[in-house]
Amino acid sequence: MIAKVSSATSIAARVRSGETRARDVVEAALATIAATRSLGAFTDVTAERARAKAAALDEAVAAGADPGLLAGVPFAVKNLFDVEGLATRAGSKINRDVSPALADATLVARLEAAGAVLVGALNMGEYAYDFTGENVHDGASRNPHDPAHMSGGSSGGSGTAVAAGLVPLALGSDTNGSIRVPSALCGTFGLKPTYGRLPRSGTFPFVASLDHLGPMARSVADLALAYDAMQGFDAGDPACARRPVEPTLPALPRGVDGLRVGVLGGYFASGGRPEAYAAVARAAEALGARESVEIADIEAARAAAYVVTMQEGAALHLERLRTRGPDFDPAVRTRLIAGAMLPGAWGVRAHKLRRLMAERFVRVFQRYDALLAPATPCRAPRIGQETMVLEGVEMPVRPNLGLYTQPISFVGLPVVAAPLFEEGERLPLGVQIIAPPWREDVALRLAAALEQAGVATAPVGEGTS
Amino acid sequence: MIAKVSSATSIAARVRSGETRARDVVEAALATIAATRSLGAFTDVTAERARAKAAALDEAVAAGADPGLLAGVPFAVKNLFDVEGLATRAGSKINRDVSPALADATLVARLEAAGAVLVGALNMGEYAYDFTGENVHDGASRNPHDPAHMSGGSSGGSGTAVAAGLVPLALGSDTNGSIRVPSALCGTFGLKPTYGRLPRSGTFPFVASLDHLGPMARSVADLALAYDAMQGFDAGDPACARRPVEPTLPALPRGVDGLRVGVLGGYFASGGRPEAYAAVARAAEALGARESVEIADIEAARAAAYVVTMQEGAALHLERLRTRGPDFDPAVRTRLIAGAMLPGAWGVRAHKLRRLMAERFVRVFQRYDALLAPATPCRAPRIGQETMVLEGVEMPVRPNLGLYTQPISFVGLPVVAAPLFEEGERLPLGVQIIAPPWREDVALRLAAALEQAGVATAPVGEGTS
Repeated sequence: MIAKVSSATSIAARVRSGETRARDVVEAALATIAATRSLGAFTDVTAERARAKAAALDEAVAAGADPGLLAGVPFAVKNLFDVEGLATRAGSKINRDVSPALADATLVARLEAAGAVLVGALNMGEYAYDFTGENVHDGASRNPHDPAHMSGGSSGGSGTAVAAGLVPLALGSDTNGSIRVPSALCGTFGLKPTYGRLPRSGTFPFVASLDHLGPMARSVADLALAYDAMQGFDAGDPACARRPVEPTLPALPRGVDGLRVGVLGGYFASGGRPEAYAAVARAAEALGARESVEIADIEAARAAAYVVTMQEGAALHLERLRTRGPDFDPAVRTRLIAGAMLPGAWGVRAHKLRRLMAERFVRVFQRYDALLAPATPCRAPRIGQETMVLEGVEMPVRPNLGLYTQPISFVGLPVVAAPLFEEGERLPLGVQIIAPPWREDVALRLAAALEQAGVATAPVGEGTS
Repeated sequence: MIAKVSSATSIAARVRSGETRARDVVEAALATIAATRSLGAFTDVTAERARAKAAALDEAVAAGADPGLLAGVPFAVKNLFDVEGLATRAGSKINRDVSPALADATLVARLEAAGAVLVGALNMGEYAYDFTGENVHDGASRNPHDPAHMSGGSSGGSGTAVAAGLVPLALGSDTNGSIRVPSALCGTFGLKPTYGRLPRSGTFPFVASLDHLGPMARSVADLALAYDAMQGFDAGDPACARRPVEPTLPALPRGVDGLRVGVLGGYFASGGRPEAYAAVARAAEALGARESVEIADIEAARAAAYVVTMQEGAALHLERLRTRGPDFDPAVRTRLIAGAMLPGAWGVRAHKLRRLMAERFVRVFQRYDALLAPATPCRAPRIGQETMVLEGVEMPVRPNLGLYTQPISFVGLPVVAAPLFEEGERLPLGVQIIAPPWREDVALRLAAALEQAGVATAPVGEGTS
């Protein structure tokens, strides 16, 4: 099965050279997807459009035209991205009633313009308000390394699809950790870029001031290849920054000499399982990171991220809460209703703290080029598991999988989640490599160094084959 | 009395040439201020520092050095501007207990760097949450054209001081209309620049996302002279835009040929007294503005401005409400407490509407270079007057003086308020000249044209002399 084990980089090279036909890659991917329905990764398969696109690519290659740097690479997107002709369900039952999208989301269009081939839309937590990858309407997306366990969420289908080798590339969204948590639990690389870097035009929002989009892949080179193809300003997203395109892929082989890496202590070194810290320690050792860095008020930053999330989420869904209450996932509905009643003065203070924390991180980044932290406090819980014990305290699973991701997206910093497998353990853990604003290249270089050293790996999960 | 009737432009010219000594100008201003205490304009007079500054200017002139474009011009600032050595009271009793400011506000420093001489701090509505110019702790600032009437607020002392000829120049702040309302009621020119244009560093805030600072003067040339001296980025205000300094004064004599001016209809042509529309009609005729422009949802924009004001105001004062409740003006306290309880989802929607309205205005500005609207729905009410009748409906005075200003500051557009006197009426009315973002020059040119045509005038109020 060609598609299953190949990287985006190698598929594109072979399709571009004419060695492999895009149609064969796509057929293999479609067959694999059809054979792995029980994983719950896909909610829609766009076979017809994928076949037409693949045929066009093969014709372009035959005619001597450039089919693009991602030629023939199958990819899929969390189902909150607009896909022409599909209702953008965003994990909900309610949105199935909206009109089909008239055009693709900007990032989908950019990947396809580079020759990639959309093969479908992926399962996700309802309205992205989730860290588990479970969905009451579509069923859970499952962990390819052990299908009885969670994929993590809310980009759960994205994690499952990439880690199971169904596609080499998927897109997700990350408001409080929704790319980094499934990357960690499924064992893929994931990039949450700087807030404002990638345009969100044509996607269903959750929390406008915290929403980020980004890629997930099984190698850092694939991640950088996809990210570079998606960069660039778009006026359709009011938060999108007018920044130059700064390709990161060429920088990867430069190594990490001279980069000063710190390890986040304090908040980020407590409240989790020992194996989460062990994973960070392995990454730190490989990167020569010896110093621990403590930043004050991280707990308050996480609380503020909750307030912003609850209030903006409630504002977004107010009308649906009034008219379609029973059609929500009850666990999402109650949080949104609670959010609708939080005082606005809290939100104002939360945004103020956000600016203050951003300044605080900027000061730390005067001494360090990047910071390490765990991505999740533990390995993937079992599907349906509602509580877990962290440092002797029984805690609800759902919110606390985002313990370490939430304070970082709150300040909008770019992060690569890198997957680490421990010998004898089926399920991986993730490490966050956190860089200063607009320095995705630094996070990617460090992740590539971990990959080259064999510390971070993203093997295909064999749980279903 | 030299200072009383002279413009900033003429004072500076005479001091620069050595014809007049700065110390004489300043002594005259101090004498006038002392003689007009009953107007309630000043809360602090900085006589000692003003005398020292004037002496230094005279020495500079004598030594052949350039004393600055505002050399010897006395000015005063709303008492929410930091003045070194004074507690920044922001109209409150509570803030009298804070430590004296260690430095001047950025705009104060910039005016003084241009040779202007600070002579004191001005009365204002408590914490700027006011349109009347009344203050329960310091007494009302009075209208120089009839001291039984309001100055308007919250920059009431600024309006009184300029209109009474105590200083040719004053600074105010405008969150929902607090420069434009007293400019209109006292009969001065006032500039509320684009949101983010002038740095607010060193001032006591009210609503960070709506607060603007700006000058008030008795001529457009003085307004532009002061504004130009204050322009420029300052990192101390996170909202301050990195824009080039774009001097407006040289543009004034260019006239208004070719400028297309529209008159705001709909919301802006209802709910006020006939004389308010008559003033707009006179200005429109003088500027050749014949077309009426209607913009949808202005009422919603005003409601949203209330929500943002109440929530951010409440967030700012939460701790003081808890610990110093009895020391607030009761009318301010109740509104802040109510604001603390408004749901955050409303605020999120208000900010969303703000972006939408800004886009809507941008589209209208593709057809027009500027728009006209009344500044207030009526002339200055009597001090203490709590209700007024507008179109047959009895309404509270305090909130409704801002009927027409509030929706405009909500979208952050630059506005010059120009004063119009009707024959046989002591009290003036104001017209808002509204320009596209960053086009203060256009609003100032149109105001200068009205002034040249004799339609807009700012005579010194003789109510007290």
